Amino acid sequence: MSVTAPQGFRAAGVRAGLRAHGERPDLALVVNDGPQQVAAGVFTRNQVKAAPVLWSQQVLQEHDLRAVVLNAGGANACTGPDGFGDTHRTAEHVAEVLGCGAIEVAVCSTGLIGERLPLEKLLAGVDAAAGELADGEEAGTRAATAVLTTDTVDKQAAASRHGWTVGGFAKGAGMMAPSLATMLVVVTTDAVVDAGTADAALRDATARTFDRLDIDGSTSTNDTVLLLASGASGVEADADAFTEVVTEVCADLARGLQADAEGVTKRIAVTVTGARDDHDALVGARAIARDSLVKTALFGSDPNWGRIAAAVGASEATVEPGTLSVTVNGVLLCEAATAVGDRSKADLSGPEVTVEVDLGLGDGQATVLTTDLSHAYVEENSAYST
Amino acid sequence: MSVTAPQGFRAAGVRAGLRAHGERPDLALVVNDGPQQVAAGVFTRNQVKAAPVLWSQQVLQEHDLRAVVLNAGGANACTGPDGFGDTHRTAEHVAEVLGCGAIEVAVCSTGLIGERLPLEKLLAGVDAAAGELADGEEAGTRAATAVLTTDTVDKQAAASRHGWTVGGFAKGAGMMAPSLATMLVVVTTDAVVDAGTADAALRDATARTFDRLDIDGSTSTNDTVLLLASGASGVEADADAFTEVVTEVCADLARGLQADAEGVTKRIAVTVTGARDDHDALVGARAIARDSLVKTALFGSDPNWGRIAAAVGASEATVEPGTLSVTVNGVLLCEAATAVGDRSKADLSGPEVTVEVDLGLGDGQATVLTTDLSHAYVEENSAYST
Repeated sequence: MSVTAPQGFRAAGVRAGLRAHGERPDLALVVNDGPQQVAAGVFTRNQVKAAPVLWSQQVLQEHDLRAVVLNAGGANACTGPDGFGDTHRTAEHVAEVLGCGAIEVAVCSTGLIGERLPLEKLLAGVDAAAGELADGEEAGTRAATAVLTTDTVDKQAAASRHGWTVGGFAKGAGMMAPSLATMLVVVTTDAVVDAGTADAALRDATARTFDRLDIDGSTSTNDTVLLLASGASGVEADADAFTEVVTEVCADLARGLQADAEGVTKRIAVTVTGARDDHDALVGARAIARDSLVKTALFGSDPNWGRIAAAVGASEATVEPGTLSVTVNGVLLCEAATAVGDRSKADLSGPEVTVEVDLGLGDGQATVLTTDLSHAYVEENSAYST
Repeated sequence: MSVTAPQGFRAAGVRAGLRAHGERPDLALVVNDGPQQVAAGVFTRNQVKAAPVLWSQQVLQEHDLRAVVLNAGGANACTGPDGFGDTHRTAEHVAEVLGCGAIEVAVCSTGLIGERLPLEKLLAGVDAAAGELADGEEAGTRAATAVLTTDTVDKQAAASRHGWTVGGFAKGAGMMAPSLATMLVVVTTDAVVDAGTADAALRDATARTFDRLDIDGSTSTNDTVLLLASGASGVEADADAFTEVVTEVCADLARGLQADAEGVTKRIAVTVTGARDDHDALVGARAIARDSLVKTALFGSDPNWGRIAAAVGASEATVEPGTLSVTVNGVLLCEAATAVGDRSKADLSGPEVTVEVDLGLGDGQATVLTTDLSHAYVEENSAYST
């Protein structure tokens, strides 16, 4: 159930003292001992990219990673050339300790935007982490825990199939939207795969999982999903099977991110069917998932389906009122854009809510996962940097 | 300061008993006694349109309105052909009472989506309102007050120039986004204008005012802005001067809507300059104004400018980090996408916040008005239909 579930990986999580408050660990190291060091990465589409994203994107052009170093306590975003220098220095230090090149080390950072990291503490933390590198589930969990910010639990997953294993961890609890969500994710595997297979599998998996998670419509400067393949199982993976298992692990991690989102009291799955095409379905589902009025109504366990109809109607998706229906928790409340049945029959008192919108225009469909908009979300996010 | 400020108009506001709770008035009537009855309208771009919007759009093709009847207590949206019949019957009843054609009567409704209106009460309310029609400010204020929903104060404005007057009222406190905001607005004038001038002036004014107000990114099914011109001043208005004064009145009403938005504790003006063009500036400003993380930070008086940079970076507007700067309440906090100065110097404790983002790429600029995302917003909107 962790990045160390596949063979060929060691991990560590230590306290480097980067966080403003508290005693929690804040630095993680994941090392691929091979024999292969194939890697792939998917990054934020935000035009304002953090230093570690700029660095890791460059490094990933080689599809070859020996290690990933991750830190909480600061995003190292909007820190200029000096911030980029800090990331470079961190990668060099990891490389020195492991005896590889800096170009084989990816860097991920998370936390407040616009503050420099305390570099000396960070480099000392790298030394400490290198000294504690270990295989086994406990080491993986220590790494998964060290990168949490407003997360309340670690998010880990693993699956074994066909003689090889895929494992991973994720962090992220807010600022989540397409373009990955504010997340750092490391996925590992001991399958034997080439760079093209790894890259294609990761792109496909993220498009179907993390890209369908939309907590608040906000897209971070630091989103990074990395895949490291050690080949240590000695078993070559079929490309389709590999994509399937990577997708399974990513979906598991995405559900974990949803369940632990900032201030969540309801886990909401918004499905649009009957769209002109899948893209239109996704556009409509995202619009509903992002709508503050829909999300506050669901926080209040209020089946106010009119807001759902209004949200999809206001989106870029093609909507014909005459064929629009809305079902909430299995109860059809609106057909042909007209009220049917009794809205009080849709019981929303539980933590799971399904919103199904049928546009009645075609075969396109998509599901987006989101959460409600609660007092706790406002509370957490109104007091983050101060 | 009301729709009765221009000559040639009478108004009334009465309690028809349409609201689920309370004793507040809920039905307004505004009558144009001429000599001219020129009119123009701008409506929601939501694909799911309420019955009164469908009716009023049809009626406005003639650019000729004798009266507008408005009700709170129900949006008459998603009510199907029966709901459209209710709107038609309401217009017919107003026409009978006033001795005109139903085609000269616009209808506006606001309230919960998906519920039929109690037609008998509504028609009785029309009779009562017709009996109380009067000119003068008090009558205008009674009409302005009758259409409020979660609004806490009536929003009215008027301006006299060049021998003629423009007046108006607006209602709207949430579900506000481009495509007008959830608002019903009636603007009146005694200037002599033709239909083309009235239409052009209203479109221009709404594009620069109500369309630049974005409270929560949600777009309603019922948004309507109507302009009625009586010609009673006998003074023909120059087209440019007319557009200018209508824009002034609409801007005044838009500021009123912002100040009374649901749960507002801060009034926020987001200005993007230096964009490639005005459209790009507007796209960027809207993205910042809609960002939940920006809005919760400002609720917490937290100058977390990194979220502002992230929001514009994630938008469709072209952003180059190297030329991006962010200023909050006059304090430059970020230059070349890099922290400068001390964020604690930006004092956000007051109720007014200005966010200025310079993209450094061209001459495009735009301002969008919004509010913070507060506990009170969540509270109001989690308990609306129940």
